[in-house]
Amino acid sequence: MNENKAFQDFYSDQMSHCYGCGRLNDTGMKIKSYWNEDETTSIARFTPKPYHIAFPGYVYGGLLASLIDCHGTGTAAAAAYKSEGRKMDSQPELRYVTASIHVDYIKPTPINQELELIGRVKEIKGKKIIVEVKLYASGELCVKGEVIAVKIPENMISTK
Amino acid sequence: MNENKAFQDFYSDQMSHCYGCGRLNDTGMKIKSYWNEDETTSIARFTPKPYHIAFPGYVYGGLLASLIDCHGTGTAAAAAYKSEGRKMDSQPELRYVTASIHVDYIKPTPINQELELIGRVKEIKGKKIIVEVKLYASGELCVKGEVIAVKIPENMISTK
Repeated sequence: MNENKAFQDFYSDQMSHCYGCGRLNDTGMKIKSYWNEDETTSIARFTPKPYHIAFPGYVYGGLLASLIDCHGTGTAAAAAYKSEGRKMDSQPELRYVTASIHVDYIKPTPINQELELIGRVKEIKGKKIIVEVKLYASGELCVKGEVIAVKIPENMISTK
Repeated sequence: MNENKAFQDFYSDQMSHCYGCGRLNDTGMKIKSYWNEDETTSIARFTPKPYHIAFPGYVYGGLLASLIDCHGTGTAAAAAYKSEGRKMDSQPELRYVTASIHVDYIKPTPINQELELIGRVKEIKGKKIIVEVKLYASGELCVKGEVIAVKIPENMISTK
């Protein structure tokens, strides 16, 4: 795994204010996503805060959906560069937003531990990229999500 | 609209620590849901904080999913009492958790204003209740969600 620079670290300043993953949002969660070694799957790790609970002992579902959301769109952006044979610091900037998200809560996710999210691109078709994300606690699959991400028009990125 | 007591205000202490809607979670968002006048739809209002952004000017999708999640499960609980012809402060306590959530982001949701969520029960079948939630900003539909909520076993509520 390349721990040097996360997908989100390549986002331009303007695109780095996201409450989930923006490096410039000081109140936010600063989710960081990376390729795994062979670059067929992506990985993010996150340890929820003690107050991120649904009920005592278990992580809040809205937070889990948020993790899947940002890891999904981050993976979509990285996959888009890869499919164009480009580095993530090259121009024009490729950014994705969520068109829809589906999350299945398979079992309650225990709090007080690091969670692992594994992303896998299911489909790249035009401006649309579908990413499947599986979330594990201590190796056990707790949540499964699917993010349909769409490319932000270039003029929306450059003109704010 | 009955503003007196929200669905979530009836939850027992043990079930009131949710980061999204728990009245005892001081860091949380304290989402509050109510029946509308005719009790065929439910309503919640929420004003995101300035840092709850996806990118400048627009609300973070993970937060929107969280609002839909808690308004959905709250509406499911209220509907369950109603279908049994019971008041929400009667015993045994009926609580619901999210089995799955689906969210369609129809248009970017502007920040710096109160959002309105309207819930409608689509189906009650055994332990499962399906709630559709539409989220509006200034009367415009921005997000549409569906929550499949399932009843928490009574012994999970009483024994923690």
